[in-house]
Amino acid sequence: MTTLSLLVRGAAEVFPSGGDPVIPKGVVGVIGGRVVHVGTADTLAAAGLVVGPGTQVIDAEDGLVTPGLVDPHTHLVFAGDRAHEYALRAHGASYQEIARAGGGIAHTMAMTRKATEEELIALAAPRLDRLLRQGVTTAEVKSGYGLDLDSELKLLRVIRRLDRAHPVDLVPTFLGAHVVPPEYRGDRARYVNLVVHDMLPEVAREGLAAFCDVFVEDTAFHPDEAVRILRAASALGLKPKLHVDQLSDGGGARLAASVDAVSADHLEHAGVEGIRALAKAGTAAVLLPGATLFLGQSARPPARALLDAGVPVALATDCNPGTCPTENLPLMLTLGMSLLGLSPTEVLRGVTDHAARAIGRGEVAGHLAAGRPADLVVFDVPSHVHLPYHFGTHHARVVVKHGQVAWRRPPEPSLLGPLCEA
Amino acid sequence: MTTLSLLVRGAAEVFPSGGDPVIPKGVVGVIGGRVVHVGTADTLAAAGLVVGPGTQVIDAEDGLVTPGLVDPHTHLVFAGDRAHEYALRAHGASYQEIARAGGGIAHTMAMTRKATEEELIALAAPRLDRLLRQGVTTAEVKSGYGLDLDSELKLLRVIRRLDRAHPVDLVPTFLGAHVVPPEYRGDRARYVNLVVHDMLPEVAREGLAAFCDVFVEDTAFHPDEAVRILRAASALGLKPKLHVDQLSDGGGARLAASVDAVSADHLEHAGVEGIRALAKAGTAAVLLPGATLFLGQSARPPARALLDAGVPVALATDCNPGTCPTENLPLMLTLGMSLLGLSPTEVLRGVTDHAARAIGRGEVAGHLAAGRPADLVVFDVPSHVHLPYHFGTHHARVVVKHGQVAWRRPPEPSLLGPLCEA
Repeated sequence: MTTLSLLVRGAAEVFPSGGDPVIPKGVVGVIGGRVVHVGTADTLAAAGLVVGPGTQVIDAEDGLVTPGLVDPHTHLVFAGDRAHEYALRAHGASYQEIARAGGGIAHTMAMTRKATEEELIALAAPRLDRLLRQGVTTAEVKSGYGLDLDSELKLLRVIRRLDRAHPVDLVPTFLGAHVVPPEYRGDRARYVNLVVHDMLPEVAREGLAAFCDVFVEDTAFHPDEAVRILRAASALGLKPKLHVDQLSDGGGARLAASVDAVSADHLEHAGVEGIRALAKAGTAAVLLPGATLFLGQSARPPARALLDAGVPVALATDCNPGTCPTENLPLMLTLGMSLLGLSPTEVLRGVTDHAARAIGRGEVAGHLAAGRPADLVVFDVPSHVHLPYHFGTHHARVVVKHGQVAWRRPPEPSLLGPLCEA
Repeated sequence: MTTLSLLVRGAAEVFPSGGDPVIPKGVVGVIGGRVVHVGTADTLAAAGLVVGPGTQVIDAEDGLVTPGLVDPHTHLVFAGDRAHEYALRAHGASYQEIARAGGGIAHTMAMTRKATEEELIALAAPRLDRLLRQGVTTAEVKSGYGLDLDSELKLLRVIRRLDRAHPVDLVPTFLGAHVVPPEYRGDRARYVNLVVHDMLPEVAREGLAAFCDVFVEDTAFHPDEAVRILRAASALGLKPKLHVDQLSDGGGARLAASVDAVSADHLEHAGVEGIRALAKAGTAAVLLPGATLFLGQSARPPARALLDAGVPVALATDCNPGTCPTENLPLMLTLGMSLLGLSPTEVLRGVTDHAARAIGRGEVAGHLAAGRPADLVVFDVPSHVHLPYHFGTHHARVVVKHGQVAWRRPPEPSLLGPLCEA
């Protein structure tokens, strides 16, 4: 007989993810920070796992239990916002036109450079709170709004400090090659040199990033520049990631495969050859349907073709001030079904085990199984299908991180008064 | 000197709607259930309006104040759900195929017929709570899942009882002509007769509906049937509304204009002539971009052309189990901008004064002005542009209905722990 430290029971469904089948009336047993059992009341008893006086029992109240969600692509540390550009776009300006007029990433860069670490933490913490309250327990966060040595290091230090102080686990990515900053517009080679010779070694020396990402697009970096940056990063222990094929098919998927990227992100315009290459390389796809929606774009990433080819497909918020200002990862499940044609199981795997794999955390996040860290969410929906289905509503009720309740939704009393006859 | 019963101050912006300009650092003064002043601290003082010991003061904390939002098209009283159909659609089944296989509206009808008034109230009240917590203080609600005399009356009685017991004001619409129910498939004329000769007179006798709506579509009712039903309704004092041109251009906009409909709803496929006719008739357009999104449709209603022609354009959730299971009206603002190309002011008018006009409440809802009912919302965003911009997040903080605080968001403490150096 072994006593649990935490037990989740009373669920209508446990969705363990990782390819495991849904468990009707499932339970999850936890000791310390680890899951020890995912099954039913019967299998729990058979395993000799019991509730004691010190066991915290969470009643799922006929809800859904999932692994803690994983958001594998965010830019959530920044200053300022770009609401004014959203209004301009409604009047017909394109994202590229706004960028050329000094808006876009350059605007956020200017605001972010001016902000102190403390200011950036104060701005980012509420965003992390919102992510966690939606059920997210692990998130990737990119730099890329500094675009000079000190500012990029500042962003990565902010990410590290937030990771240590906030329940959401953060996976840091260095994105010095987000765009060429204005002061290097006439000499982009010099900026690439700065990334390779100054930024990357310092980022690696301080151990500030797990990944190096490059935005490959006509308005950002060329494929040959990306290869140079990512090779230098790999040599320093930073694994490659890429933003590719967002606005046009620039051969980015093949590029990502050729550098053994852990993930290729966006892929709205990826073609058949690129998909095949990703599958062969074992590169995950991270799709960002919120950006597609927010920008009003008609191109859809080839989600079905990617899955059919064997590529793990993850979904992310892209949380950033320009192309997707949201922390609502469950909404991406709805977009994954309605815009990308994925099934309920596929979208949920997209924010759990597939998302974890896309940020190199496949062994520790996104899968509820014995031996794994006890990160889980109780949602007030009766099945995993209802989470994408009933959209635009906050469904997370309890979020557990490392075996501890990190957040519980306050009670919401009914507003209905006394009833009369009609 | 007159003492206010309620004062909202400390706003970054008041958006009064109704064509009135945004007021930076605006205030709203209320006495009893009515707004007495919308202006600034200076104009309030100049009008001799003061705070006394009994005045409730709401600090908007640099947020946005708007009229209580108006949701002009919902089907929120129903039993069961259609999550399983959403999963089927992800596997390639079309909405029409599911309807032909006995799913769709017929499924919800079967579940709703079985439910008692009390059961329907228990199901609908949390939906109304969610609407109100998003800032909605007035909503239209349709019957149409009963499709026999008793069940339609049951739905309308439920709407009346909810209206009386819940802070959200409900405007009831009779939608007996939603689809032809299965038992009349072989003899649709007999069902139209039932609507005209049995349902409508009884609905009118009990005073259960302000509007009569008809779903005009190949799979529902034909234009000539709609004209017959709406003429009978008009004779009984129920004003016409129409669901038209959702799946194809069936000339529905012209039809709506020809019967002097208060609103024409959906309009995804409306053409130039229809738009011109709506403008001439003074019919409002109610657009439902959430259904477009949820169904993954590519056709967009011609929002810009409607506004250019002088048609008031409203936005609604369409809250229903089949094509748009959401109570998130602010999300429709984002869709109005990103999918329909409207401006921030246009989308906000779409859920305030234009929405009120689309449900015949133009004089009493959707416009913050002296003499109007004191329905208002405080949102935690710094401007009206940020409400659609920062999407998927709950921004309503205080909702006032008839001069009373109907709901206040519970405090949400930060989850950030103690910070260390990087």
